[in-house]
Amino acid sequence: MRGMRELPPPEKRIEDYLVRRIAGAGRAYGFEEYEAPVLEPLELFAAKSGSELAVEQSYNFVDKGGRELIMRPELTPSLARMVAAAGELAYPVRWMSFPVCYRYEKPQRGRVREFMQFNLDILGASGLEADLDVILVLRRIMLGLGATGERFSIRYSSRELASAVLERAGLDPSETPLAFKIIDKHDRMSREEWEDWAVQEMKGVAAADAVIRLASCSNLGSPWLRSIAGDSPAYSEMVRFSGMLESAGVTEARFEAGVVRGLDYYTGVVFELMDTGGENRRAICGGGRYDDLVGLFGGQRVPGVGFGLGLLTLQLFLETYGLLPAELSSSHPADLFLAVYSEGQRDFAVKLAERLRDSGVSVELDITGKSVSKQIRTADRKSIRFVAVVGPDEAGTGELTVKEMATGRETACREEQVAGLVGR
Amino acid sequence: MRGMRELPPPEKRIEDYLVRRIAGAGRAYGFEEYEAPVLEPLELFAAKSGSELAVEQSYNFVDKGGRELIMRPELTPSLARMVAAAGELAYPVRWMSFPVCYRYEKPQRGRVREFMQFNLDILGASGLEADLDVILVLRRIMLGLGATGERFSIRYSSRELASAVLERAGLDPSETPLAFKIIDKHDRMSREEWEDWAVQEMKGVAAADAVIRLASCSNLGSPWLRSIAGDSPAYSEMVRFSGMLESAGVTEARFEAGVVRGLDYYTGVVFELMDTGGENRRAICGGGRYDDLVGLFGGQRVPGVGFGLGLLTLQLFLETYGLLPAELSSSHPADLFLAVYSEGQRDFAVKLAERLRDSGVSVELDITGKSVSKQIRTADRKSIRFVAVVGPDEAGTGELTVKEMATGRETACREEQVAGLVGR
Repeated sequence: MRGMRELPPPEKRIEDYLVRRIAGAGRAYGFEEYEAPVLEPLELFAAKSGSELAVEQSYNFVDKGGRELIMRPELTPSLARMVAAAGELAYPVRWMSFPVCYRYEKPQRGRVREFMQFNLDILGASGLEADLDVILVLRRIMLGLGATGERFSIRYSSRELASAVLERAGLDPSETPLAFKIIDKHDRMSREEWEDWAVQEMKGVAAADAVIRLASCSNLGSPWLRSIAGDSPAYSEMVRFSGMLESAGVTEARFEAGVVRGLDYYTGVVFELMDTGGENRRAICGGGRYDDLVGLFGGQRVPGVGFGLGLLTLQLFLETYGLLPAELSSSHPADLFLAVYSEGQRDFAVKLAERLRDSGVSVELDITGKSVSKQIRTADRKSIRFVAVVGPDEAGTGELTVKEMATGRETACREEQVAGLVGR
Repeated sequence: MRGMRELPPPEKRIEDYLVRRIAGAGRAYGFEEYEAPVLEPLELFAAKSGSELAVEQSYNFVDKGGRELIMRPELTPSLARMVAAAGELAYPVRWMSFPVCYRYEKPQRGRVREFMQFNLDILGASGLEADLDVILVLRRIMLGLGATGERFSIRYSSRELASAVLERAGLDPSETPLAFKIIDKHDRMSREEWEDWAVQEMKGVAAADAVIRLASCSNLGSPWLRSIAGDSPAYSEMVRFSGMLESAGVTEARFEAGVVRGLDYYTGVVFELMDTGGENRRAICGGGRYDDLVGLFGGQRVPGVGFGLGLLTLQLFLETYGLLPAELSSSHPADLFLAVYSEGQRDFAVKLAERLRDSGVSVELDITGKSVSKQIRTADRKSIRFVAVVGPDEAGTGELTVKEMATGRETACREEQVAGLVGR
């Protein structure tokens, strides 16, 4: 079916490469992996992420026991429930995961129905130091994949700051979610179209004006921003956060008041990672602070901050700039292909292959009984680096002639030497 | 929800350990990883795996577009479709995967609703050499995890042999699937209860007798078996396969005519891996040959053989015999916890932590601003091996005192030396 995650080995190798690099960056900051269920009660998401995502854009259904279930469209509500239920944890908790998520949307470039993302969260730390930490991980992921600050930017703001601006512009607090929704979509349509929408939806000229100005303000020192919210705690916090990022050398991050993100539960700093070029318009990563989410599950209030990063959007970004290693397309797990000259050598070859594996060599043994030339053609098509033929001589002497396919170089050796020869 | 795959970090580490070891064994034989969708059209499984599994015991539903979907209860039909659709592949294809699968069943020990399994298959090779190869991988997985032939046994037979026996006992071929179903469940109830069921379901005394004798025959040389099917090609094949296993040194495998496995698509050799003790009655692994499955998707006929191995049943088995490494429960990804004495050192500490990470050290930096003693208590609870405090002296001189928590040993060093000290 279209939009589903079906990955033959060459594509799976790319995903594995991303997972390996990303998990490595997470571990560098002490993050531990966890796993949450794909199937969840619908109400977990309907109340937390927002109903558009949970109900309209998701796979949800009633199971045989009459329960309303959802295939998770994202991970954070499950994480919050797990943390709330866990009891004793050593806070701050640093957890990461690679959930497969589901959205019932029309597939298009960078948007599919089944996708793997990366989630990384800190729970139990309310200071901006935690927000900085998750952004440092995000940056390390990107730099580790060969991307530079010319190619991506991390845009951040704060929902508290946006709320303060809107409130001071006279917006009724009950309308803040609607204003956020409008701001969040400001670059999904033409400027004119979007402004018309904002004016139409916002009651009052001042509120509409604030929404429109917020969406295009990318300067913390902007006279308009300072005049309307310069004395708010949220503004001071943004100034401080900006200084922390600068001091930590995060030159890839910049303030953008129009960043509010689409999930209902964000309460403070919000951020997203974008391609600075034109080809990938979708955010590669979105995140922020959610200080009230865990508390919704009863028990204590546990502040949280984290992000979700789409592996497919990341892959498209890396492909756009030629940043995926070329060898990913042809690397085969077997070091050595062992061809069998005739059935008389099979028993010997089976046992030889087992001993080579014991010594750390990955061996694909022929199982077809076809001619040696056909066997070697298969090894070649699979891009297996070394080939050796087991014939009567080899079975008799235990000596092998190992051929490196790329160079044609042949080396005669005993089986104990094969591991060294193939680089194991 | 009960029976769902929710793994906090300590449990996730166990799963990761199993995945790492299993994938390593697969790579040793040249298997490549792939990925298939969780959501599939219902008819893919209803026709291929059998309707009991696909319809009654699965999560299936109608999506918003009116399609009947299923959350896969197993992987093989998806694999067969992928291979049929792939066009040019270098046969024999050796593919492996770690699918998360779903069954709508009552959760109990070793049986959950959402579970990860391991699938490994060879496609495009019809000889017993392929069957041997997948059993060799299975055995290497078990031995690599520390299990020995006293703890597990691989029981094999062949559906062709069972069919030959049943046919010669006068069973109508249309009743073979029912007979297989009965045989497959022979150790899920008391012997008496099961025999009553067999007699009741099978038309004819000879057929019932054959079913009952098959289920308890574990000797290829059995006079009964030889008299009824000794001249069949299927019997000769079993004798040959038995010899191949013996020659390859697979002492953990033994013939059991009662092994037929529950999936409709098996056509030849079938096998399962069982705990030889009494605690884990569920098969840890089941597999076999399915030569007609890929052809059902149109195009050429591609023979296949492979197995599925449940990671949870494997884990229970390993726990039963104390075979899970103790250090899995306490290993933390961070090498070093960096405590911050006061906010005056934070900027320095953030940058120091970044440089240490650049040098390969995993560093968890304090983000709480709590007292140093509280910070160190957190590091201790997380079992992070090394701790260093960044205070005014350290920020001034760049020298660190790194303490190994287990021994209390303190080492003064410069930051360039930390990687070596923590073993990176």
